[in-house]
Amino acid sequence: MGINLSNFLSSKTKNRKMNEFQDLDHVNGVSISTVSANLYKNKRDDLVMFYFREGANFASIYTQSKIISENIKWNLNQKTKKIFSLLVNTRNANSFTGEQGYKSMENIAELVSQELTKKQKEDEEYPIKIKAKNIIFGCTGTIGEKFPEDKIKDKISDLVKNIKYIQNKYIWMKSALGIMTTDTQPKIAMEECTIGNTTVKIYGVAKGSGMIQPNMATTLGYIFTDADISNEILKKLLKKNVSNTFNAISCDGDTSTNDMISIFSTAKAIHGKIKSISDKKIKNFDDALNRVLLNLAKRVVADGEGASKFVTVKVKNCKTEKDAKKIAFSIANSLLVKTAIAGEDPNWGRVIMAIGKSETTINLDKISIKFGNLNIVHNGKIYINYNEEEASHYMKNLNIDITVNASSGTKNFTAYTMDLTKKYIAINADYRS
Amino acid sequence: MGINLSNFLSSKTKNRKMNEFQDLDHVNGVSISTVSANLYKNKRDDLVMFYFREGANFASIYTQSKIISENIKWNLNQKTKKIFSLLVNTRNANSFTGEQGYKSMENIAELVSQELTKKQKEDEEYPIKIKAKNIIFGCTGTIGEKFPEDKIKDKISDLVKNIKYIQNKYIWMKSALGIMTTDTQPKIAMEECTIGNTTVKIYGVAKGSGMIQPNMATTLGYIFTDADISNEILKKLLKKNVSNTFNAISCDGDTSTNDMISIFSTAKAIHGKIKSISDKKIKNFDDALNRVLLNLAKRVVADGEGASKFVTVKVKNCKTEKDAKKIAFSIANSLLVKTAIAGEDPNWGRVIMAIGKSETTINLDKISIKFGNLNIVHNGKIYINYNEEEASHYMKNLNIDITVNASSGTKNFTAYTMDLTKKYIAINADYRS
Repeated sequence: MGINLSNFLSSKTKNRKMNEFQDLDHVNGVSISTVSANLYKNKRDDLVMFYFREGANFASIYTQSKIISENIKWNLNQKTKKIFSLLVNTRNANSFTGEQGYKSMENIAELVSQELTKKQKEDEEYPIKIKAKNIIFGCTGTIGEKFPEDKIKDKISDLVKNIKYIQNKYIWMKSALGIMTTDTQPKIAMEECTIGNTTVKIYGVAKGSGMIQPNMATTLGYIFTDADISNEILKKLLKKNVSNTFNAISCDGDTSTNDMISIFSTAKAIHGKIKSISDKKIKNFDDALNRVLLNLAKRVVADGEGASKFVTVKVKNCKTEKDAKKIAFSIANSLLVKTAIAGEDPNWGRVIMAIGKSETTINLDKISIKFGNLNIVHNGKIYINYNEEEASHYMKNLNIDITVNASSGTKNFTAYTMDLTKKYIAINADYRS
Repeated sequence: MGINLSNFLSSKTKNRKMNEFQDLDHVNGVSISTVSANLYKNKRDDLVMFYFREGANFASIYTQSKIISENIKWNLNQKTKKIFSLLVNTRNANSFTGEQGYKSMENIAELVSQELTKKQKEDEEYPIKIKAKNIIFGCTGTIGEKFPEDKIKDKISDLVKNIKYIQNKYIWMKSALGIMTTDTQPKIAMEECTIGNTTVKIYGVAKGSGMIQPNMATTLGYIFTDADISNEILKKLLKKNVSNTFNAISCDGDTSTNDMISIFSTAKAIHGKIKSISDKKIKNFDDALNRVLLNLAKRVVADGEGASKFVTVKVKNCKTEKDAKKIAFSIANSLLVKTAIAGEDPNWGRVIMAIGKSETTINLDKISIKFGNLNIVHNGKIYINYNEEEASHYMKNLNIDITVNASSGTKNFTAYTMDLTKKYIAINADYRS
């Protein structure tokens, strides 16, 4: 993996190295606890509990797949205004596990709610009775394997016991590590911004596409803030900001049954009420949330299986955003484009091909293509000073920017992907041999 | 390439080996001539002329790409009822070559028509004045490179001189070889059938997906028959039979600017007039044409870049054919499915994933999946006697059949693809290094 992740660090983190993430502040109202439930043979942490002492407002966006995992079915069924815990396990996706898998969610949620209610009674002046419906789940790993309900239940009391209100300085890193499958890097991003005069935090962890056992990739992304934002506005903010971040990335064009992006707001920061998504007070938060999500999304791509190059596909000046998106993904998902990039070949013919097959209304005579700052195609013709040697030299970069200018409107879309290497095939075909 | 092509041989050819294709009969009214125009350094044949002495009825289906090559633009512009020559060159796709590329088609068509008119005067009792509009072109190879008009024009008189009315016994094989790019095998298929009491021939040659130079794959398929069928009915027959043959295959999900499938009917066989596509007399021909196209299409897949296994994805009993097709291609185009097959891994989880993301209305509880004859998933649940070892053993076959039964309608679609191997990446990424 030759990609330098430091390019994607956001403002809060850009001057730190990976091992300096350890001493991160905590987000007020969020406690994290991790444990090994022995789901992996090597006893790595595989179970992560995010606990919201006073509850959290929340919103989630789930996979577009028609087949969804049992934990997502559980999450969708819970009608509640506050979440008290998000429990994430790796190694088993709880997908295609049927009634047993769903029943496991029910049983674990029941146990977690009991244990947390006990903890409330011990620790809080005004203890809250936490119910099963206040617990949601993230699962990732193998599909179609019996869900390890008992192994997980055995560790719930340990998880709850480990909860600290003053966070261990390694805990964000541990949580990012604890949700990984075959990711090679933990993925963390954080921003601070102001709402009115109050500084609030937006911290996020994610995991990306990695095969574990004979199965599929999953993207999980969890965002935590101490801002005070209603469920309804969180949902709108998340939807808006996922569209050009997590929904703008593609590793292999495949979609997991378990994809889940959530945001939790503990409301511990004191600022005026946010009345709507167009409230001016929320502008800074909106931008910062986008940076956190984009940062995490780029990390997912950069750590995509076998990736050796990070590819940004900018499509500009289309008639509609839909057209821009179709063209961007047609390029970003093209095996021929992705293998050319792996081969450091300035193969603009394949970019043309991908534009051509994108099912958009395009005017070829107006199209221009750049690789980095190099003009390749200009107004539908090969650029008059196109220089194959310069273009070849450009392709040696670790970050490749492909810009398509359709010159026929004002709408843009940027997609992010990685190259397609022999290592991708090795990871996905040969791991059993 | 471990795939045994003999599985795809059609009735006329199934008992022959590849080197026995050499002594094939000719199709009455079709003459073939090949030459090297020095488009490749190694002086292989790269220019193939198909000449129809008395003209031929014809129909073509072209690429769905919005960006089309200059030869296809030329072909689409010619309003004529009879074609006298199809000229195919390899090495240069005449795509993204602009006015110069189009003008080359005009100039070459003009020269070919003059030379063929001369030949008509020499050889025919009732010579026909052949016009530029009676000539169409197939091109494949590099895009964006200046079209080698002069090199091709220099060889037209040689091509015309070489035309024999009694065909050299190697000529079909030579034509299939002459249109190849990086195909590893020439692709020929032939059938005989009856229309009324008359036996007619349907012969075809094709080339498949092969990169040549830093550019794209192209599928060309040309079918020749001595049957007497009108342009209008040829068009309907071709459209109908391409839908479950050439439009049912996928190597890498990419689409060329040059794809072209054509059928030419010399009308030399004497049988009653075919009045419509529903005419009973045409039934045998319809079936035989499908076999020729399917045979060629399967050869294209089996010779797909880096292919080590041939994969048939049958989707049965959907509500609509559109749904069946979406599911079939979602599986056939999934990188995760294709790499699993390369790795001989019975990874049904990835098949489930591909069904889930297919944007169809599916009822998971009714879905069954088989690998070969092995039940994997039955009515939405893992098959009760599912045996991973048996399934692993099955995956060692060179031909892999995946059957999805949606149990919710009567519509079916079968897609054909190959596995995705490191060799694919090597061919498409590393060929310059």
